[in-house]
Amino acid sequence: MQNLAINSERLWASLTEMARIGATEKGGVNRQALTELDGQGRDLFVRWCEAAGCSIRVDAVGNIYARRPGRDDSLAPVMTGSHLDTQPTGGKYDGVFGVLSGLEVIRTLNDLNYETERPIEVTVWTNEEGCRYAPAMMGSGVAIGKFDLDEVYGMTDAAGKTFRDELEAIGYLGDAPPGVGEVAAFFEVHIEQGPILEGEAKNIGIVQGAQGQRWFDITLTGQEAHAGPTPMAIRRDALVGAAELVGVVNRIGLEFQPGACATVGQFVVSPNSRNTIPGQVTFSVDFRHPEDVRLSAMKAALEKGCAAAAAARGLELDCREIWYQPPIVFNTDCIAAVRAGVEAAGLDGMEIVSGAGHDACHISTLAPTAMIFVPCKDGISHNEVESATQADCAAGCNVLLHAMIERSNAK
Amino acid sequence: MQNLAINSERLWASLTEMARIGATEKGGVNRQALTELDGQGRDLFVRWCEAAGCSIRVDAVGNIYARRPGRDDSLAPVMTGSHLDTQPTGGKYDGVFGVLSGLEVIRTLNDLNYETERPIEVTVWTNEEGCRYAPAMMGSGVAIGKFDLDEVYGMTDAAGKTFRDELEAIGYLGDAPPGVGEVAAFFEVHIEQGPILEGEAKNIGIVQGAQGQRWFDITLTGQEAHAGPTPMAIRRDALVGAAELVGVVNRIGLEFQPGACATVGQFVVSPNSRNTIPGQVTFSVDFRHPEDVRLSAMKAALEKGCAAAAAARGLELDCREIWYQPPIVFNTDCIAAVRAGVEAAGLDGMEIVSGAGHDACHISTLAPTAMIFVPCKDGISHNEVESATQADCAAGCNVLLHAMIERSNAK
Repeated sequence: MQNLAINSERLWASLTEMARIGATEKGGVNRQALTELDGQGRDLFVRWCEAAGCSIRVDAVGNIYARRPGRDDSLAPVMTGSHLDTQPTGGKYDGVFGVLSGLEVIRTLNDLNYETERPIEVTVWTNEEGCRYAPAMMGSGVAIGKFDLDEVYGMTDAAGKTFRDELEAIGYLGDAPPGVGEVAAFFEVHIEQGPILEGEAKNIGIVQGAQGQRWFDITLTGQEAHAGPTPMAIRRDALVGAAELVGVVNRIGLEFQPGACATVGQFVVSPNSRNTIPGQVTFSVDFRHPEDVRLSAMKAALEKGCAAAAAARGLELDCREIWYQPPIVFNTDCIAAVRAGVEAAGLDGMEIVSGAGHDACHISTLAPTAMIFVPCKDGISHNEVESATQADCAAGCNVLLHAMIERSNAK
Repeated sequence: MQNLAINSERLWASLTEMARIGATEKGGVNRQALTELDGQGRDLFVRWCEAAGCSIRVDAVGNIYARRPGRDDSLAPVMTGSHLDTQPTGGKYDGVFGVLSGLEVIRTLNDLNYETERPIEVTVWTNEEGCRYAPAMMGSGVAIGKFDLDEVYGMTDAAGKTFRDELEAIGYLGDAPPGVGEVAAFFEVHIEQGPILEGEAKNIGIVQGAQGQRWFDITLTGQEAHAGPTPMAIRRDALVGAAELVGVVNRIGLEFQPGACATVGQFVVSPNSRNTIPGQVTFSVDFRHPEDVRLSAMKAALEKGCAAAAAARGLELDCREIWYQPPIVFNTDCIAAVRAGVEAAGLDGMEIVSGAGHDACHISTLAPTAMIFVPCKDGISHNEVESATQADCAAGCNVLLHAMIERSNAK
């Protein structure tokens, strides 16, 4: 298998073409889930897959499955995939690199007239980012039965548009019941979205699993009042309380090293007028840790900090955990297939734990799963300057090719 | 003069009717400057003034002047007025009470066939609140020559609409050059917007002057990145820095007691996505103090705090002072007329310093000026629950009546 290799130029050209859909002035991509641009990206992917001889299936939550038959097409498939949606100020690689790597694997197998024992499927999971409809990894979550389809259908974005209407509007409200069926192996190749590979000068991360995550929505309510004549002593300023909690969240992240991440990403002040003391602030908290016990301790520290900050300023507190994802450990056979692929392709790999959640984390609860990371410049992602090299993208895709072939011929 | 009194029922009915324009579900008013609703409020005021026999003049910045002739109409007028625009979640009294009190004085003089020596004018100043187009007190600022008309015309709101287009759209782009001419005396009656009168159980505040103000716009810029895989140690989180500065602003407010107020009212996080480390935060700072030297020291403390917070986190800092209003001392003759009015009306008054800026602060730089405060419930303003009693509104209007008559007959 050492002489098998994907077409680096073709993969790069596909990435470049897809990045035009939703391209931003600063060189990034804004192709949020279920927007018209998301629909255009999906259409392009489907056209490419059909041209590569794949059959296409779309399920009721909009996940796309492009299938290349196996020698024994009744066997469970080997799958790969990721997502095409982006953050509002996202990059050209997050998600789309995994989807187009899967397509490139199929194109390469076609070039070589290589028939795998098992069928190969490339998936596009709906709404991985979760920025328009929360939580993230929604399509894969419905596929594994973690999220209820009707609840997802009823969700509304900031403009009040429902998930179902928007999915239908772009033409991806499929008939197939969501669900991946029996899967022999699932792989997802992705940019690291962190600085570790670059720092260690490695071109492949052999991903062992993923950090656990806990997400919270917090609202502090005080008393709106005029900024001028309201003495400091009698204020109930929701922003002062919320700002204190941003500091608490940051300190928790620092205290639970190694491995902890703690972020306030959304933060909305009401009424947000220059000379009015803010009456309400709503904000998100995102905690991650590779150890479940430590992650729970972070939650306890947050709840204690929230209660203290609210009590000290006479604010009402509403703190809800809206998402919990335990730490994930990937399948040893799949990890071994990735490691063998790294060796076969003559690359320099290292073991790594994913800091971000990925659709592969969902699929891993049902099927043998592993992930492949490639470096991205300065570790920056969820940003328009997100960047990866053609060589590293090709390296990740080559590892994927080897790992999928190995698993597709395994009993 | 002891037996002169305004019609409390009529004043209250006018306040109630005006409050329907832009009424919110929670009982407040959203009638922001130069919106269609602002236009409707102005139209109603103009109709009422014309019915009361006034001539109407509108200047090029949209200030309205309703005039009742004097016995010697060549004399400089005695003026009163305030504003009809509100905060996004404003109340029924802030500003409009002063405008309709002026109208009620004219209606009362008409009832009594009372001819004043000098003409009486009631003004509506454009965009006092400053929440749609900053800074506040814009119409009176143009009238005294503090703001440049063309600069004001070119200002855009959050939707990109210019001040001039919006003023024209509501029909208040007048021909008269902005400017109040010679003014014998200017009075503004207003709710206190603070808790002092209520706390002291007084029904009139005899306003001696106003706190100085300094307003700032601050932007902190860090680095957007994915919230999961970006280690805490290498983050440049703009929100963590900005939250620290909210704490700094609050501490400055507490340290410069008595008299200091310090508020962050606007606070906007970008990209404001749950799992992205914020790359930029823009926020406002509002400092007030009755002593100019202390107000300057607050500014110095802010600049020091900003520089330290930015440097500690590797953030870019942009801190601009966008507004400076020195502390104001009102005219002794006008204050004496207010005090005499309180006595004539048999009310219980106390001396007070305004914590908020008012159009009267601008006019005081050109003309003898004073203000009259009435209590508002719990000192709350810039809030839909803002509340004042009919009796207190009538009391303030009666003091205005007496003070205006006294000044209109003075040499």
